[in-house]
Amino acid sequence: MSRGRFITIEGGEGAGKSTLIRSLEQVLEARGLDVVTTREPGGTVLAEEIRNLVLHPPGETQWSALAEALLMNAARADHVEKKIAPALAAGKWVICDRFADSTRVYQGIGGVNDTMLQAMQAEVTKDAAPDITFILDGPVDELLQRRTARGTSDIFERRPIGFHTAVRERFLEIAKAAPDRCKVVDASRDPSRVLEDVLSVIDERVSAS
Amino acid sequence: MSRGRFITIEGGEGAGKSTLIRSLEQVLEARGLDVVTTREPGGTVLAEEIRNLVLHPPGETQWSALAEALLMNAARADHVEKKIAPALAAGKWVICDRFADSTRVYQGIGGVNDTMLQAMQAEVTKDAAPDITFILDGPVDELLQRRTARGTSDIFERRPIGFHTAVRERFLEIAKAAPDRCKVVDASRDPSRVLEDVLSVIDERVSAS
Ligand SMILES: Nc1ncnc2c1ncn2[C@@H]1O[C@H](COP(=O)(O)OP(=O)(O)OP(=O)(O)O)[C@@H](O)[C@H]1O
Ligand SMILES: Nc1ncnc2c1ncn2[C@@H]1O[C@H](COP(=O)(O)OP(=O)(O)OP(=O)(O)O)[C@@H](O)[C@H]1O
Ligand SMILES: [Mg+2]
Ligand SMILES: [Mg+2]
Repeated sequence: MSRGRFITIEGGEGAGKSTLIRSLEQVLEARGLDVVTTREPGGTVLAEEIRNLVLHPPGETQWSALAEALLMNAARADHVEKKIAPALAAGKWVICDRFADSTRVYQGIGGVNDTMLQAMQAEVTKDAAPDITFILDGPVDELLQRRTARGTSDIFERRPIGFHTAVRERFLEIAKAAPDRCKVVDASRDPSRVLEDVLSVIDERVSAS
Repeated sequence: MSRGRFITIEGGEGAGKSTLIRSLEQVLEARGLDVVTTREPGGTVLAEEIRNLVLHPPGETQWSALAEALLMNAARADHVEKKIAPALAAGKWVICDRFADSTRVYQGIGGVNDTMLQAMQAEVTKDAAPDITFILDGPVDELLQRRTARGTSDIFERRPIGFHTAVRERFLEIAKAAPDRCKVVDASRDPSRVLEDVLSVIDERVSAS
């Protein structure tokens, strides 16, 4: 049994990650692949507990960015150990909605030392290094409009425009520093065009590898 | 207002940490000091939530040592930020029942890479470096007897004797590597003798500094 493939989808709020994953899953399954879709933070019983603790801190109090980074990586450790690594070992293709790059971006912007973030991440993702990471990129104001149209919000979305610009820039920096792993996709186009691009990169870089 | 002092008490289960802290608090308060006693994991609303999650993982599942280490440090980040550092800044003396060394010992034995443990810890304890750490040390079988006599147990205590021996050895290694910060105390003696030792070290090394 050959190892499966690990695909992570990253990008700011409203970039179209969840939309892409739904269609990508269908296409890959139609090709006869065994596909597991999952998300971060979360994906396992314990990681979902942490997700809940991060998104809804009890009491009148807030997590620091440092505590958030540690919690996100604790959730990720469980997710990798119990779900992602076993699925890959069983030859499945795993598609994850956000992964380690999101922690580097969001908690990095929050002020957490990037060296420490990378050290933690290296340890936590040791058994689940993404084969490819798609970074859905587009003008911040357009993505903001989608988000508003959808009508949902959480503590990460209720931020000023400068925050979302910083998120976009940080994702692009990460992509630039890891060109073999990361592929930036123009997410301002039609969902079908985004999917097409993603599939052609998968065919080129991932399926054959 | 001069900065207070930060004293951490470490050692295996049943070593007498809580007993020592109760008497030490009384003596220091009788000297007119403003003393805050606290414990890890825990000490703040959010850190106690994490403590609960670590000690009682929901569902039929368990945390890996790596996830535990990250959770412990997330709890510590909150504890340092919201309780320990503000108390020290206000001139108080803080006595903490277990701190960062316990994570290095327990999760280190669990297999977590010590370099990563130290990197995390350096970041998390940046604003709360202990002035002194007392390591309560004694023969594992004696301490085991105390524990049994007390009649309580949790997931960390229900371990084989070899585990407790490894804990003892790991604490002694840490003490050896940081002799300016750590003082090993023979905990097999009377509680009053243990307290006496600890006070004389405080008078010598901590009060005047
Ligand atoms: N390529 C696209 N063009 C236009 N609208 C899109 C596109 N992709 C997604 N949308 C719409 O934008 C909204 C946000 O999309 P989606 O939920 O997929 O984004 P997301 O990146 O998963 O967001 P979040 O980070 O909040 O989970 C949805 O209403 C979706 O239908
Ligand atoms: N120096 C001592 N000599 C004899 N018995 C002691 C001594 N110190 C504490 N004890 C007794 O041993 C038991 C364990 O002590 P204590 O609860 O203080 O240990 P601890 O290190 O805080 O343990 P834990 O890690 O489980 O919190 C208690 O019943 C206590 O009364
Ligand atoms: Mg989504
Ligand atoms: Mg105790």
